[in-house]
Amino acid sequence: MTSADDHAHCAPDDRQTVQPHKDALLRRLRRVEGQVRGVAGMVEGDRYCIDILTQISAIRSALDAVALQLLEDHTRGCVRHALQSGDGERAIEELLHVVGRFSR
Amino acid sequence: MTSADDHAHCAPDDRQTVQPHKDALLRRLRRVEGQVRGVAGMVEGDRYCIDILTQISAIRSALDAVALQLLEDHTRGCVRHALQSGDGERAIEELLHVVGRFSR
Amino acid sequence: MTSADDHAHCAPDDRQTVQPHKDALLRRLRRVEGQVRGVAGMVEGDRYCIDILTQISAIRSALDAVALQLLEDHTRGCVRHALQSGDGERAIEELLHVVGRFSR
Amino acid sequence: MTSADDHAHCAPDDRQTVQPHKDALLRRLRRVEGQVRGVAGMVEGDRYCIDILTQISAIRSALDAVALQLLEDHTRGCVRHALQSGDGERAIEELLHVVGRFSR
Repeated sequence: MTSADDHAHCAPDDRQTVQPHKDALLRRLRRVEGQVRGVAGMVEGDRYCIDILTQISAIRSALDAVALQLLEDHTRGCVRHALQSGDGERAIEELLHVVGRFSR
Repeated sequence: MTSADDHAHCAPDDRQTVQPHKDALLRRLRRVEGQVRGVAGMVEGDRYCIDILTQISAIRSALDAVALQLLEDHTRGCVRHALQSGDGERAIEELLHVVGRFSR
Repeated sequence: MTSADDHAHCAPDDRQTVQPHKDALLRRLRRVEGQVRGVAGMVEGDRYCIDILTQISAIRSALDAVALQLLEDHTRGCVRHALQSGDGERAIEELLHVVGRFSR
Repeated sequence: MTSADDHAHCAPDDRQTVQPHKDALLRRLRRVEGQVRGVAGMVEGDRYCIDILTQISAIRSALDAVALQLLEDHTRGCVRHALQSGDGERAIEELLHVVGRFSR
């Protein structure tokens, strides 16, 4: 596989992207889903609040890691491509908007 | 139900707490679980990265709301109780440790 | 100095508190002020954006450390005191409101 | 002034960038510096902890706004330029590293 294939292939007009790390992302998201279910089980089972909060903070970190991976592939793929094809303004606008949401 | 019942009942030594808003928390967590599954579906279905990232940031907000509710009930219940029974130091130490994790 | 003195002495109605770690806080804040001035100097001197951003993220960490110290002393001092004197509701409300601002 | 001039002019090898919004950034940073000095004055003057914490959270928002402006100009300027001149990998690596620091 060439390194050029290692980027998101995107068609922003159709709101479509093929993720280059799709399997890894899906595995991580399945793990996050399990962690959320685990937290529900902890609440159900009357587990100590601090232990639940620690677990929620771990989920947050796991979600942030997924987001950073998506952001990285998006920048290497869609943003780079948009910049090369003269549609960079929109791509950068979108990117910074979403980065702003995560920097809060 | 008296307002006094509206607090977490906790036995930190046994790492146990009965959440006062258990049903509401479980409902929220089930919704979060569904949102995570939805994001996996978006990745699977080649949805546009920015739309996925926007959705992940919504999950983060939903998780933060659950954490704040737990923190509130914990402070009103366990921390208050610990302070009254002379075990306040440990309770405050724990509380600040977990707040520190979320303030990053 | 007894450990009981090591807490914030507070009169919330007068919006007054005597900080137990006043000197350390002032030293830290003076350092933060210098860091902010340093960043202005970097912008003025056309320093590379990434280096400026790295420095801003260091300031953010330094400010968060000041906030956590204040939060800790506030909880050990004012919140504990309010809980003991039956004014706990307001104190907890305030505390969680401000924690919520930092958890974003 | 053409819109093309509205971007950071950068020489990453020399760790130099000319900021397109230099005056606005310097004004904002001077205001942040004043806010930090104001917080020191609040600590000195025994102001209520919660009021100090509220003010620190305002400084954090102001700093984040400066960081986002720098990030925006950096992306429109240096990153775009690096992508066009074939040095995109390094630029994207750097960008994501710094975004990662702020997303915590």
